[in-house]
Amino acid sequence: KIDGARLWASLMEMAEIGPGVAGGNNRQTLTDADAEGRALFAKWCDAAGMSMGVDTMGSMFARREGTDPDALPVYVGSHLDTQPTGGKYDGVLGVLGGLEIIRTLDDMGVKTRRPIVVVNWTNEEGTRFAPAMLASGVFAGQHDLDWAYAREDAEGKRFGDELERIGWKGEEEVGARRMHALFELHIEQGPILEAEDKEIGVVTHGQGLWWLEIRLIGKESHTGSTPMNMRVNAGLGMARITEAVHRIAMEHQPDAVGAVGQANVYPNSRNVIPGRAVFTVDIRSPEQAKLDAMREKVEAEAERIATELGLGLEIEPVGHFDPVTFDAGCVGLVRAAAERLGYSHRDIVSGAGHDACWVAGVAPTAMVMCPCKDGLSHNEAEEITQDWATKGADVLLHAVIEAAEV
Amino acid sequence: KIDGARLWASLMEMAEIGPGVAGGNNRQTLTDADAEGRALFAKWCDAAGMSMGVDTMGSMFARREGTDPDALPVYVGSHLDTQPTGGKYDGVLGVLGGLEIIRTLDDMGVKTRRPIVVVNWTNEEGTRFAPAMLASGVFAGQHDLDWAYAREDAEGKRFGDELERIGWKGEEEVGARRMHALFELHIEQGPILEAEDKEIGVVTHGQGLWWLEIRLIGKESHTGSTPMNMRVNAGLGMARITEAVHRIAMEHQPDAVGAVGQANVYPNSRNVIPGRAVFTVDIRSPEQAKLDAMREKVEAEAERIATELGLGLEIEPVGHFDPVTFDAGCVGLVRAAAERLGYSHRDIVSGAGHDACWVAGVAPTAMVMCPCKDGLSHNEAEEITQDWATKGADVLLHAVIEAAEV
Ligand SMILES: NC(=O)NCCC(=O)O
Ligand SMILES: NC(=O)NCCC(=O)O
Repeated sequence: KIDGARLWASLMEMAEIGPGVAGGNNRQTLTDADAEGRALFAKWCDAAGMSMGVDTMGSMFARREGTDPDALPVYVGSHLDTQPTGGKYDGVLGVLGGLEIIRTLDDMGVKTRRPIVVVNWTNEEGTRFAPAMLASGVFAGQHDLDWAYAREDAEGKRFGDELERIGWKGEEEVGARRMHALFELHIEQGPILEAEDKEIGVVTHGQGLWWLEIRLIGKESHTGSTPMNMRVNAGLGMARITEAVHRIAMEHQPDAVGAVGQANVYPNSRNVIPGRAVFTVDIRSPEQAKLDAMREKVEAEAERIATELGLGLEIEPVGHFDPVTFDAGCVGLVRAAAERLGYSHRDIVSGAGHDACWVAGVAPTAMVMCPCKDGLSHNEAEEITQDWATKGADVLLHAVIEAAEV
Repeated sequence: KIDGARLWASLMEMAEIGPGVAGGNNRQTLTDADAEGRALFAKWCDAAGMSMGVDTMGSMFARREGTDPDALPVYVGSHLDTQPTGGKYDGVLGVLGGLEIIRTLDDMGVKTRRPIVVVNWTNEEGTRFAPAMLASGVFAGQHDLDWAYAREDAEGKRFGDELERIGWKGEEEVGARRMHALFELHIEQGPILEAEDKEIGVVTHGQGLWWLEIRLIGKESHTGSTPMNMRVNAGLGMARITEAVHRIAMEHQPDAVGAVGQANVYPNSRNVIPGRAVFTVDIRSPEQAKLDAMREKVEAEAERIATELGLGLEIEPVGHFDPVTFDAGCVGLVRAAAERLGYSHRDIVSGAGHDACWVAGVAPTAMVMCPCKDGLSHNEAEEITQDWATKGADVLLHAVIEAAEV
């Protein structure tokens, strides 16, 4: 079993970097705080005697050698970047849980046959630079490197430039590594495990997603002197589409969600009818047919509403992944580990996207989940117990050891 | 008659200060650009031999002496500040039209009995610091000076500090001046005069207004892993209230308008259910009873929607004025001037708020309007013809001369 107190102390030390405003973290990707978090992780890996590789997307790969120099490594990890008002565990638990496994193996003097590599993927969150899971997406051949470099944040800064600025653009070709398997430990970010009093989620599937950026063009005009029938109100269009997204998600219950998270009107002045609105629709389902149907309906409703209000309309997909089925063998190792350790568990579908979802396309992959309080994530108040974190990392340890021996 | 070419040249010269991004202006109140615009206006007044007074709200009063040293002056003017994406004429025409009157009287060698004072009121637009018409509101005893100083912009900068920073905090007590009358020339900012082919609007009334800032508190959570029935979505609440404001305004047709111009969600991330939404409702009517009824309905709907979605709700009025009836005598002078000059005209209600609306509470006041293309204002594409501007200033000249002799 891993050392739960040591894991917890590392989580708390990392959380001091890029503090939020309400007890959580703002350590967004490619910021100075991200660089500081990476440096701390690198220092810890170094202290554990691991060697570090960094690819040209900035993803970090810390390697512990195995006894068989020709064996493909087992990978384990997640991401250290956070939401602007994010929690201390989303992503971080998976990276530091991986590190804790190495420390535990070192303590026990155990050498695995295969090398073990702990990975920190760049820009999992996708807030500063859309889409989410960007570096693992390039790794899995889903995006071109140049396209990824050209992603811009709200201030127009480019991903490639910011990666260079913080000094974490490596030399290694992205996606060149071959993996025997990859395991990602992550907090559930939803309420199911806690509600059912389960300690471990054995993740069998991941939801598919579409992010649709919608841009409405209206006509800026005076809120006081423009008669109601002469308005071309982009903000009203955004409101109606936001409601439509909610309704469409409700119509596809269960196993469907939808919301607008990012919403901006211009010029955003109290006495100006918005002349432009830019916002992002997030729709998800573990069923491909539902996901497709929802996207079609959202686009049709957006067209109808734009026409009704006389608005110009542009819809651009800015993020997408299909539903994922994780590798049966790897999932079996996770389930067997939970059984062996005597931890209560259930199969679960991941509501969020994860780096493991992309990697699943190029290597046998599975995920371990632990509960989080009130299902709250992407919120500074995100919380887990030390016991949950410990048991999640225990399961990860056992699954990884099994995979590293065969 | 005034010199239309000279007036136009001055309008164009002022428009070079604080250029917008699409041919209009961004000369928001108490910015460096505002200071530059004020300096140009002061230079012009100086060249016309006028003396300048500045009050502690930064409003500028340029005075041309009359023949009777004891007579109360006639005031004329408007504002030089603009919206963030504003036009070249909104406000500016009223100030520079006033200056053009002085230049014309000088050219003709005419001395009026009463002094004439051309005024530039600070922060009419209210975008950077709510509410609108702030300095004229303090002048008319509607707001306290200290309360006005404490208004904050989006970055938390205070009105009082910014006024000092740009160097336009004067010494004169606000509201100490007594006026024989005040006339404000302004573009209509609506479509009526152009549609009816009228050259002059004789403004008899002004609409009343409420600005209600609404703050909704939900729960930030993950867009993917939070089940639909566990969401507390502040952005969805904002969408529903935006639609309700529109519906309520439509139900009170005619003579009622309503919209949400300013709208923000937090943390404004694609994969986070908005945990907070802050937006401003703008409702107006020339009828007090309608205005009151609309406010009541908007507040009731906001309560209903917040309850339905489990959201916390705060409603704060951040701007208000009652419907205004302008002084019959002053309005008569405007109408008579249009008649005498042979310009087509009609009585009209101002859809927008104006400094003259506040002054109407403390001095006999009237307004002159000229058409604007497509009724477009609070838009960089705001446009008027030189002929419209000239005729508006002609009517202003005649009304002011009449008022300055009695
Ligand atoms: N796990 C997580 O929050 N990932 C961000 C991508 C997503 O929105 O699902
Ligand atoms: N004239 C004008 O646009 N004033 C701003 C205040 C308002 O919103 O009516």
